[in-house]
Amino acid sequence: MTSITMIEAAAARLKGHARVTPLLSSPFLDEIAGRRLFVKAECLQHTGSFKFRGGWSAVSALTEDARKRGVIAYSSGNHAQGVAAAAKAHGATAVIVMPADAPQLKIQNTRDLGAEVVLYDRAGRESREAVGARYAEKGGLTLIKPYDEPQVIAGQGTCGLEIAEQAAAEGITRAEVLVNCGGGGLSSGIALALEARAPDLRVRPVEPEGFDDVTRSLAAGEIRQNPSQSGSICDAILTPQPGEITFPILSRLCGAGLVITEEEAMRAMALAFLRLKIVLEPGGAASLAAALFHPDKIDGEAVIAVATGGNVDAALFQEALARYA
Amino acid sequence: MTSITMIEAAAARLKGHARVTPLLSSPFLDEIAGRRLFVKAECLQHTGSFKFRGGWSAVSALTEDARKRGVIAYSSGNHAQGVAAAAKAHGATAVIVMPADAPQLKIQNTRDLGAEVVLYDRAGRESREAVGARYAEKGGLTLIKPYDEPQVIAGQGTCGLEIAEQAAAEGITRAEVLVNCGGGGLSSGIALALEARAPDLRVRPVEPEGFDDVTRSLAAGEIRQNPSQSGSICDAILTPQPGEITFPILSRLCGAGLVITEEEAMRAMALAFLRLKIVLEPGGAASLAAALFHPDKIDGEAVIAVATGGNVDAALFQEALARYA
Repeated sequence: MTSITMIEAAAARLKGHARVTPLLSSPFLDEIAGRRLFVKAECLQHTGSFKFRGGWSAVSALTEDARKRGVIAYSSGNHAQGVAAAAKAHGATAVIVMPADAPQLKIQNTRDLGAEVVLYDRAGRESREAVGARYAEKGGLTLIKPYDEPQVIAGQGTCGLEIAEQAAAEGITRAEVLVNCGGGGLSSGIALALEARAPDLRVRPVEPEGFDDVTRSLAAGEIRQNPSQSGSICDAILTPQPGEITFPILSRLCGAGLVITEEEAMRAMALAFLRLKIVLEPGGAASLAAALFHPDKIDGEAVIAVATGGNVDAALFQEALARYA
Repeated sequence: MTSITMIEAAAARLKGHARVTPLLSSPFLDEIAGRRLFVKAECLQHTGSFKFRGGWSAVSALTEDARKRGVIAYSSGNHAQGVAAAAKAHGATAVIVMPADAPQLKIQNTRDLGAEVVLYDRAGRESREAVGARYAEKGGLTLIKPYDEPQVIAGQGTCGLEIAEQAAAEGITRAEVLVNCGGGGLSSGIALALEARAPDLRVRPVEPEGFDDVTRSLAAGEIRQNPSQSGSICDAILTPQPGEITFPILSRLCGAGLVITEEEAMRAMALAFLRLKIVLEPGGAASLAAALFHPDKIDGEAVIAVATGGNVDAALFQEALARYA
């Protein structure tokens, strides 16, 4: 079970390897949001998303022996790149199971980072969990799950340690922290870090319309599933349901979920381009979209949106600019 | 005359107001550059460019009386926004003289930051210096020149202090520091800061083809002019000639200039999008283009490119992605 001690230990292992990402802001965005808005730019993390933190945390926690046998991960793309980069830096081989419809950029980057990529069909009979388990068994590889894994949650939690410190430097001690949420690894890691370091900063998970399993699960008090598992441009945060490990943490520590539309995510991407000079993917812009376009569902004079990733294909980014910039 | 003491004093005035921008990198870019490549992401500075540093430094150094009378600046856009934002924060009015062909985004932002914008024709009879002087005299406004002004150079120099510190943290003590160069305010400020703090980091000014006044002036040992004053997409770094104050500093401290093409700047923008998740304007990407596409003209095992700004119109950015991403 991930604790603040584990998160601090992960932060020590990540020091000098993960980037301390900046907390950005713009008066133009404050005006739209109707309050002070800060954006934690995790798109500037190595491999273009926060997933590098969890990947590094998990790989660096392995025994020497396990590292030598190598690791395996399943991922729609960002966890894939995070694990691949971390494995490479530790001299471990990595096999990554990815959906065939993941953005080309993510598949190619994962290969270029030295991992062996195995594609599977999201709509097919075999789940990615099953494909992953089969490979892991065969080669003695250690499976690094994308979110239901204590060392991964601890790694993502290091982002929360930075948020606590950076918010304090801005004079923010009470605010909601909007976090794009798939399986809940980042949301639960940040929530645990904030519980210990900045208890008046509260996580609110953000999801795209039609894939709001966490929001519905939090409302119901028990795990709910998404009816469908693909078909959103917010590919980074599509998961069937909250994790078994993450959900109890989310339940205990997070506020209600927020739901945004794909169009709002695209508009947020265009505004992040214009006002912050950062590149966000749709799933990475959901939290910013919630802050900008759903201000009435948010409490407080300041809000922090964690912009979780920027691995977007150029064509989709051009479309966001053509429509909304 | 700007000294390291003035730069340190400017850093103290900027503390908590200007952003410490991150030093980014990507193994994919290292491979193209053939060495370790670090990008100082000044596009993430307030107002989208390093010019906020010089604007804040100059406005914060004014007497109370002068602040009350207000300030005036001439600028193709980034200095305009930097001065406008700094003036607003200090409660001073700002008049900004801008070329009519500056990017719409820069003109609009300057207005939105509360400044009065006066447009002039770059090809017209009256120089921007003359327009600026006329306004300054009329209203008792203090003219804040874009580069030939010691407090502006001191402000830009704070970027050099950060580079010295961040390079040391990366283990880099000897490298060339590529800086996009218009009138030379940033190049000379960084050069002065590095002279005092990291003498084995050496500035190399970077300019677009056809507007290489600094490169030719450095080679000749005396000031040379550009034949033309407009007509490049690198609008941020087009100036008629090096400054009277900046040129002696550049001469004493910088290595030879580097010249890149517009196409190379556009390709660098696309690679910064793909690999660093930052938005650069063409003039802000020239240094990165030099590092990526002219490695044979650069010395050493590591290179630092200062990515000076990201205020690019969406249409031009889309074009860069469509062609090169």
